[in-house]
Parts: sequence; structure tokens; C-alpha cells
Amino acid sequence: MDVVEIIRKKRDGSANDAHEISFLVDGISNGRIPDYQATAWLMAVYHNGLDPVENRALTQALIESGRVVEHPRIAGFKVDKHSTGGVGDKTSPILAPIVAAAGAYVPMISGRGLGHSGGTLDKLESIPGFQVNLSLDRFEQLVAEVGFALIGQTRELAPGDGILYSLRDVTATVECVPLIVSSIISKKAAEGIDGLVLDVKTGDGAFMKTLQEAELLACSLVEAGKSLDKRIIALITDMSQPLGRMVGNAMEMMECFDTLKGQGPSDVTELSLELAARMLLMAGLGEDLEGARRLAREQIENGRALEKLRQLIRAQGGDARVADDYALFPEAGGKFEYTASQSGYLTAIRADRVGRAAVRLGAGRQTVDSGIDPAVGIELLRKVGDPVEKGQPLAIVRYNHDGRLAECRQWLDEAFGIGPERVDPPPLIRKVIG
Amino acid sequence: MDVVEIIRKKRDGSANDAHEISFLVDGISNGRIPDYQATAWLMAVYHNGLDPVENRALTQALIESGRVVEHPRIAGFKVDKHSTGGVGDKTSPILAPIVAAAGAYVPMISGRGLGHSGGTLDKLESIPGFQVNLSLDRFEQLVAEVGFALIGQTRELAPGDGILYSLRDVTATVECVPLIVSSIISKKAAEGIDGLVLDVKTGDGAFMKTLQEAELLACSLVEAGKSLDKRIIALITDMSQPLGRMVGNAMEMMECFDTLKGQGPSDVTELSLELAARMLLMAGLGEDLEGARRLAREQIENGRALEKLRQLIRAQGGDARVADDYALFPEAGGKFEYTASQSGYLTAIRADRVGRAAVRLGAGRQTVDSGIDPAVGIELLRKVGDPVEKGQPLAIVRYNHDGRLAECRQWLDEAFGIGPERVDPPPLIRKVIG
Repeated sequence: MDVVEIIRKKRDGSANDAHEISFLVDGISNGRIPDYQATAWLMAVYHNGLDPVENRALTQALIESGRVVEHPRIAGFKVDKHSTGGVGDKTSPILAPIVAAAGAYVPMISGRGLGHSGGTLDKLESIPGFQVNLSLDRFEQLVAEVGFALIGQTRELAPGDGILYSLRDVTATVECVPLIVSSIISKKAAEGIDGLVLDVKTGDGAFMKTLQEAELLACSLVEAGKSLDKRIIALITDMSQPLGRMVGNAMEMMECFDTLKGQGPSDVTELSLELAARMLLMAGLGEDLEGARRLAREQIENGRALEKLRQLIRAQGGDARVADDYALFPEAGGKFEYTASQSGYLTAIRADRVGRAAVRLGAGRQTVDSGIDPAVGIELLRKVGDPVEKGQPLAIVRYNHDGRLAECRQWLDEAFGIGPERVDPPPLIRKVIG
Repeated sequence: MDVVEIIRKKRDGSANDAHEISFLVDGISNGRIPDYQATAWLMAVYHNGLDPVENRALTQALIESGRVVEHPRIAGFKVDKHSTGGVGDKTSPILAPIVAAAGAYVPMISGRGLGHSGGTLDKLESIPGFQVNLSLDRFEQLVAEVGFALIGQTRELAPGDGILYSLRDVTATVECVPLIVSSIISKKAAEGIDGLVLDVKTGDGAFMKTLQEAELLACSLVEAGKSLDKRIIALITDMSQPLGRMVGNAMEMMECFDTLKGQGPSDVTELSLELAARMLLMAGLGEDLEGARRLAREQIENGRALEKLRQLIRAQGGDARVADDYALFPEAGGKFEYTASQSGYLTAIRADRVGRAAVRLGAGRQTVDSGIDPAVGIELLRKVGDPVEKGQPLAIVRYNHDGRLAECRQWLDEAFGIGPERVDPPPLIRKVIG
């Protein structure tokens, strides 16, 4: 097959067929096709897109570039959740034990934070001893025995996606819906799941700023999942302000435990339960959506979800006592109160700015290689719509390096909006697609 | 400077500034910027183009990637011609000695044939002993002493263009006007010229099939040349049928000598003289265009142009006796007459098909690495508009391998059109731009 002809077709806006796409992905994965042809094709895809048939072929080829986890010991339904990422977005360690406690299986492979948005692995690693780099065999064993597991990406799953992603990253071809879709769906399908619930974020702090962009991505993701015979649904949820009160790794894990104890902030609780309910309904647990929601709530009320998470933390080498003794988490040395500059109503807590403020403290990484500080973060004391008085604290900043405070403050100055009129925040769940 | 940002700007249809483009070309030329970023940028350029300022910056950066020939011993005007390539297009070895004989200087660096179109170097090499691979120092010396020289591309001139071209060739980014323009103009400017006459071909046998496409390319070329303060003009000329009677390397050189003796076909003579006249006028020789045409014609009539070519052939190691004794050229063993399948008028001699027929004989190369046979070729006995009788010979095919005749015939069957009504061929010179 002629690579130049494959590139030319895509360049001219024609469709590549499944053979061409699999030839391309195979060749890129095993190094037979040089990177410089791969990136020309990626830029042509950026300009001309991929139709659903091409997208299915690309996703399938990426899956087949590596191993697909089999779960021979599991008869039940295997379901995962994927979020497109945001600030304070901490639903995974809450909903996974809820769903497992209710009887479905959650083989969850997560990512790290990058830029202003956080990552589940970083949050989990704030638990002393917790190991995210497990083998796929151990992963499969944990899912069968505990009902869920929370590990990091391995080189065995969809390695072609890793190669394509690293090329996209250095050639300005990241922001391309069909390439995003095939990347997400191939990695999730390789986990060996039967169903997937997507949390597509929209707003300032999300990758997709507008509802329209988020809908486009959600529809493409749902279509790609269905083409692989997966059960799939997408919720479009608000990321104009951070989710919950906590932004920062250890602080967010504490909020997860609070939520599993029934004491979490209302938005974190609502979104975690809704996503869990959708996963349970997909797994055939609960008669209808209301029943599934009830089932999810019960796993918090009866304490089984919290116990499931304790069980998994132990199984992944962590100190499960953190669930009840937050002093076992790493603690930041410094603390300062960020106060309101005027009186009125909170009209905005711009999530991306809060995320950047937290990154400056060391809670996130600006490049793939930088390390992070699990202890630092920002606790938001007010949410959009709340009345505030001048001088009243809006947030508590926990930090370890004085030198980083000034920049953090600047980002917070940009984050908070205060106005004379009360503003309703956008609804948390904007739309359901699928 | 951030390469990804440079690619992103071009991807989004914004302009790259001169610093960015020179950073890119420098980095690609010296290997600091990897090929996979270069090709992503090239594909973004393919989709979004380059504006005149960017094109000037790219051309300038390509020129500066190598050496620019200086001609310290030449006080006179240095002018070259560039053709976008065609079938039977053999004006260079005719017009260069004409212009030199009339007093201007022609530092001409030519290319080889590829695909269905021929190349000046291949034609020249059919002269026994003729060397095209000379050093730039020897080149400069020849131009100063003889008034012109005809050599091949060296690695010293615009090497960045060579690298970019080889990447374009394998990533389907060849057919892109701004990239074509910067490639042509950078190589020509590096010859150290003051002026350039362009012969942009249009029609079946040309790279630009339609007059509109040819005009677009011609305008961009003229604009790019002017932005570098070169005198420049473009003629758009017909390549719907081959130029002249001969297609094939030695056969075309014989036609060049015939033309310099005043016995060439009318179209070859007309186009060579017109291009030469434009070059002379640019050099300030001849009072006006009519005067320049007269001056060009005189160099044929007084035999000085032919003598100039003999002088150069000797200087470049060739046997100049070929000019008067065509038997010294390599000769093909086989000869067959291709005859008309019906009576009527010749309505088409499709240049690209004739070119492919000649390539099948061995007159051209299908890949960069293939060798060629200088002796073989096709002599066209009729031109478009001529009446023909069924069974009358239309062409004489000179060949060395019986096995290649069948395919050659098939291409000729496709090349010739015969109809009941007389058709006027398109005018040879379609338009002048600049």
C-alpha cells in the first residue's frame, strides 16, 4: 500500500478505508512508517476530519496495536467512566466504589493532571503507599476480587495511541475531535469494558469551552462507542466553576472520603451519584434510572462504598486509615486566607484560573515531566451565587513555598467575579446524550 | 521560539512572521527541528497557503540555507529562464547561447526529467562527453568566459529546498503553489541572477492543466521574484501538444542544433526566440521588444549562437562535432512508423501521453533513481490541425527494446485524436504576466 496515496486522499478530503487506516496505524506503531508521514496525515485529518467509518477503523486499529484486557473470572457487567477533565473533578474515587459495592465491575485506568486540570492518579498518590503502576494481570485480579481497581496507563494497552498522541502533542494536532475520540475510546475499550459513561465537561475550565463544542465531542464519542458495540452514554456537565470545595490532591481525596460518608459538597455528591446511577442502570442494576439512583445512594448510606474504597486502598498498597484520619495525608506548612475585595454576590469562580492558581502552588504540572506537591491546594469557601462581604474569606490557600504565593494570588484575583446582582450558576448537568 | 506555536498559527490560518519562518527553515536544514514537525507545517501550508510576505520570507530563508553564487568578474546583466516543464520542451540549449551571443550572461542550473516531462540535463548528456556536474567555481568561470553555462543542481545551493522537497515528495505536499514558488525562486536566486524569464506551461502535458491554474502560479512566481528585487516576467505557453517534432534526448538535441541553424520547427523557433528576446530586453539589450526579437534572430542568422553552443560543449567536456554530425549521437537500433487509424484532421496530440510513450521506451525516468536511454524517442510527423490519411505515418518511434513497444503504442493510441473537422491548435504564447 502507498502511504503517500493514503495521505493524498485525506489531504483532498476523501475518506481513507479501513485497510488504509489499519496499514497506517500498524506502520506507525512498529516504526515501518516514518513519523514525518504520520504527522502529515494527522495535519490533513485536522483539516478534513474523519467520517464515522474512518473513526471506527482508527479506533479499532489503535485497540489492536496492543493488548485488550480479558476478565475471564467476571460474569458481571464491566463499566467505566471517563471525564474529559476539569478542576476539582474528583468523582472517580467516589463512584467506582459505589458501583462496585452495588454489584457491577469497574476496571478503571486513569490519567495524570496536565495544565490547569487535575488527574485521578495524582489524587490517589496523595494516599501514603498507594501504588498506581500495577501490571494488567494484577489489575484484572483486583477487579475480579474487589469489584474495581484504579491504575495508570500501561504500555501494553493501545500503544499506537501513545505514539500518535506524542506526535500530536508536538505538531499542534491535539485539538481535533476525531483524534480525541479515537484516543479516548480505544484506551477505554482496551480495558475490556461492556459499557462506558462519559462526563464531558463544558465551560471555562473545560477543554470544550462552549456547550456546542461539548455536544459535538459527546455525540462523536457516543457514536464511536456504539460502533464498537459498547453501551455508552454521555453527560455534559458544568465546569465553569470548580467541582466541590477542594482543588489540590490530598485535599480532594479528603473530599472524596467526606462524600462517601454522606458529608460531601452537594455538587460533588450529586454528580458522583448521577454518574454512578447511569453506570448501574447500564449494568442492569436498578429497575429504572430512579431505582439506580436509589441503589447508588444506598451504597453511601450503608457505608459499603466507603468500605470498598478502604479495601482497594489496602489492596493497592496504601494506608487505608487515611479515610478516617486525614492527618495521615501530607500537610502543607503554610495557610493563608484569600478575601473578598468588595461586597456583593459571587458571579464567577473561573475554573481554569483556579486550576492555574493551584498549579502555581505545585498541585499540578505544567509539563509532563514536572513533579507535584500532594499537600498544597485551594479550599473554596463560597460558590457562585453566594453573597459576600468585603474582607470576608473566599478561599483558604495551603502552600509550601512562599515564593509561589504572589502568582497564585494573581490567578485568584482573575478567578473571582463579584457583582451587585445575584447570578444563578449554570445547572450542574447540562445535557444527556446517547 | 516554540515550533508547536509556529505550526499552530499556520494550522489556524494565521501568518507566520519572517523570524518564525527563518527559524523553521534553519532548524529543518540543520536537523534541529525534526522532520515530523516540518511535515505537519507543510501540510498546514498546503491547506492554508502562505501570503506574499510569508512566501518572501520562506524564499529568502531557503536561499540563505546555502551559498549564493557571486559573479565578481561579470559587469553585465545575468539573466536566466525557468520552465515549469513539458514534453519536447527544449528551449534552454537554444536560447542560452542566443542570449550569451548577444551580450548578456546566462548562469543556468537545470534539472532532470521526471514522470512524463523531460529535463535539460538528460538532453545535454546525450552529447558524448558532456559533463553537467561541475563545481560552482567552474560554473562561475564558464559564465564569465563563455557567457553561459548549463550545469546540474549542487548541494551548495539552497540545500534547505532539497530537504523540504524530499519531505514534500513523501507527504503529498508537492502540489502547493506557495511551496512550488519558493522552491523555484530560491534555487534561481541562488544562481546570482539579476533577472528571470519564466515559461509557465499550461495544458494536458503541463503540471498546471488549466490556463487559470497557470496564471495563478505565474502571478505568484512574478510576485515572489519582485519581492527579492529581481526583474521577472512570465510567459504562459501552450503544452497541450508537445513542443516541436522531437521527444527523446538525443533527438531533441538534434532539433536544438537545427533551430540554431535556422532550420528548426516553427514552434520551437518562435518560443526560443521570444523567451530569448524577453531575456535580452530585461538585460537592456535591444531598444524595445521588437529590437530584442531582431537581436535574438540575428544570433541565429549570423551563426554566433551555434558557435557559442559549440564553445560551451567543448568547455564542458563534450564532443562539439555533434552539432554538424548527428551520427555522433547515440543511435537506436529499432525504428517503426506509427500510422493513422483513420482519415481526417489531427485534433489532438496529447502531450502527457506522448511523454509517457517516450518514458516507456526509456527516454525518461519513472522514479528518481532509474536510468535513461539517450537514443530512443518519438519523432512527430504531423501537428494539430494537419490533415491525415488513414495509414499515413504520424510518428517515427526509435527504440532499443522490442518488449517496450506495445505499451508505447498504447500511449500513442491515446495521444492522437483524429476528427472530421479541422481544429486550430491553441496559440503557442497564451499570455504574458509581469
